[in-house]
Amino acid sequence: MARLKGFEKLTNIDEAFSAFIEKLEKESLKSERIPTRMSLRRVTAEKILAGNDLPPFDRSAVDGYALKAQNTFEASQFNPKTLKLTEDEEIHEGEAKQIWTGNSLPRGADAVVMLEHTRKTKNRLEVGIAITPGRNVSKKGEDVQKGEVAVEARTRLKPHHLGLLAALGATDVDVVSKPKVAILSTGNELVELGHKLKPYQIVETNRLILSSMCQEVGAEPLDLGISRDDLKEIGTRIREGLERADLVVTTGGTSVGNPDLVPMVVNQIGPPGVIVHGVAMRPGMPTALAVTQGKPVFILPGNPVAAMIGFEVFVRPFLLKLLGVEWEPRPTLKARLTRRVASALGRRIFLRVRVFERNGEFFGEPVRIRGSAIFSTMTRANGYVEIPENREGLDEGESVTVHLFDSIEGTKHV
Amino acid sequence: MARLKGFEKLTNIDEAFSAFIEKLEKESLKSERIPTRMSLRRVTAEKILAGNDLPPFDRSAVDGYALKAQNTFEASQFNPKTLKLTEDEEIHEGEAKQIWTGNSLPRGADAVVMLEHTRKTKNRLEVGIAITPGRNVSKKGEDVQKGEVAVEARTRLKPHHLGLLAALGATDVDVVSKPKVAILSTGNELVELGHKLKPYQIVETNRLILSSMCQEVGAEPLDLGISRDDLKEIGTRIREGLERADLVVTTGGTSVGNPDLVPMVVNQIGPPGVIVHGVAMRPGMPTALAVTQGKPVFILPGNPVAAMIGFEVFVRPFLLKLLGVEWEPRPTLKARLTRRVASALGRRIFLRVRVFERNGEFFGEPVRIRGSAIFSTMTRANGYVEIPENREGLDEGESVTVHLFDSIEGTKHV
Repeated sequence: MARLKGFEKLTNIDEAFSAFIEKLEKESLKSERIPTRMSLRRVTAEKILAGNDLPPFDRSAVDGYALKAQNTFEASQFNPKTLKLTEDEEIHEGEAKQIWTGNSLPRGADAVVMLEHTRKTKNRLEVGIAITPGRNVSKKGEDVQKGEVAVEARTRLKPHHLGLLAALGATDVDVVSKPKVAILSTGNELVELGHKLKPYQIVETNRLILSSMCQEVGAEPLDLGISRDDLKEIGTRIREGLERADLVVTTGGTSVGNPDLVPMVVNQIGPPGVIVHGVAMRPGMPTALAVTQGKPVFILPGNPVAAMIGFEVFVRPFLLKLLGVEWEPRPTLKARLTRRVASALGRRIFLRVRVFERNGEFFGEPVRIRGSAIFSTMTRANGYVEIPENREGLDEGESVTVHLFDSIEGTKHV
Repeated sequence: MARLKGFEKLTNIDEAFSAFIEKLEKESLKSERIPTRMSLRRVTAEKILAGNDLPPFDRSAVDGYALKAQNTFEASQFNPKTLKLTEDEEIHEGEAKQIWTGNSLPRGADAVVMLEHTRKTKNRLEVGIAITPGRNVSKKGEDVQKGEVAVEARTRLKPHHLGLLAALGATDVDVVSKPKVAILSTGNELVELGHKLKPYQIVETNRLILSSMCQEVGAEPLDLGISRDDLKEIGTRIREGLERADLVVTTGGTSVGNPDLVPMVVNQIGPPGVIVHGVAMRPGMPTALAVTQGKPVFILPGNPVAAMIGFEVFVRPFLLKLLGVEWEPRPTLKARLTRRVASALGRRIFLRVRVFERNGEFFGEPVRIRGSAIFSTMTRANGYVEIPENREGLDEGESVTVHLFDSIEGTKHV
């Protein structure tokens, strides 16, 4: 008996993504100006040039005394030079003035001698070391020079970037706008969390999972709700999403059985419609990628793990593209597989593993799947391994790269 | 000439932290109940037991036909068995009913045959394979069983945990309350971002940096503003912080010169006061750790890099403790140092490096410090290496562990 149903042809992941990207018009990044203090984790739209020098003036790098270096040239521990202490704005020949770290250098001074190399006696200072001009002085602009690139374009802003921007007096910063992602879940059996379940109904979870994944990457999720498996209702909601958001993500209604509702709807909305349907990956095979009204629609399976992997493989990289961030990997590590894993040639497998440490080495334990268990394969795992299309599995003891999506227990040595 | 000023004794980092922790009363975690949909990145206060089975009923794992397995026992590709298609709620002897992935199994059925092993002819179904009972069925509770631990206590909630909680019908979740961190910056030379600078004034940046670092770890920053170097003003603000927050972090006024203002103030507020002042680390040596009114006060240096490292070494681990998260490392990787670095015995050095990849190997380039450059050592670096107290430096080519605080350029293979 032949294979009667199912996808006639599965497209390789990389080919699927390229074919899809090709159908999209290249858009320039959208940006907006926001207060620097609100910009943590946002992405710079343009490179930011220093508007002034840092430090803005010559200042002391230590606690000590500002003086003219030439007045110390013959000083040594056993033959200290004696200088006159002053409180004036300006230092003259033979004078020294107390100064603390960060204070601006008084006029006339060209160096600072550290406290520990001096002895103070009334209004006199004994200096027990010879220093050269510029010693212990932070020169104006030595940290960042006016006109220098302070922060590169397309930088994900971290606390230290915010500090630098503030130091340069930048009250506002141009950042890439957050991509808006409209998320729709489809399925007659699905019920909103908090509502009472009738027999055979289940709680809808994909919108919560995918909107959380959007937030993690810095995108803004929009909720299109739950739709019944109904052409018209799905169409109305996707159209709403296309209007309000930069892209639409749906889950469910993609399987070859439960007739291809969402792909049909998207094809009806307008060309080019579905670009790829059926991807050589597991989980996530029934994934479809579409473009309509010039915007991308990611049609993910209803199974939450398959939807998560579909998001990871297609939506997350696309969102990073919209943010102008070429590449932002999850943390990875090398681990040894604790047992052999079989897989089918020609598909990329996303194997969930639990990484643990023993005697300084990392091991990846493939999570055993109880039946078609869904959530427990994610919650018992802390990472995944990609088995490439040209392998028929992985060997016990093989060293693999694990992409971590959660923390590792029982170790402090990562 | 003897070392006249400075800290008489520097305390080792680990000893400093232990001495400080000892003076604090062990408090139980504070928790609060919040909606599950708001709980991303929060930390569970208690372990969460599954309130029901997942899946909640026996359901099909594939698209196909539900039937009694015994009706297929003699079937083969060349000798298919013919069954009668039904649309009833219940399956009887010799019957089959179409079913999609995720649908509940009809009464009377004990297995599902996949679409591709069948051929449909009007109201008859030819089955070309023998299957055993339970085949392609997700049994009730096989993912998560009622009463099983769904999510462990003190888990930082990720998208997949949220999905699982929702699937189990948990509309709310008990999470550890966000620690409140009051942040004060001290220094006469400091001006609020956005205000015009007079000569010799600089923009205050530490509150923005440290509040961002608080947000990253999941704590709630409270702004105590900028205080002048004035005993009374600093005292008023720290008291306000002790009242409103779980801990206070200050920057500036710790150096041995600029008299020890903040430590003095904290000692005045009440015992035990300053526990450690002067830590064997660089940067960050003038750090002080104090306890007053039963709450911790972290007294960090005014130099922004020293303040960041002080936060990283003392405040961040303490906040994780308050969150009940034993340990949550930054991502690390092994890299080879591109050049030799000297350091002083007896101090832990936090060396900023720029990690890059060449031919599949990672290298760590120590960031050259231009004078006492401050921000550029952080913004040109993407990680740091700890040089332990018992080393006098690191060798060129030595393999070191880099703690990454930013992303790595020029590679897709991490």
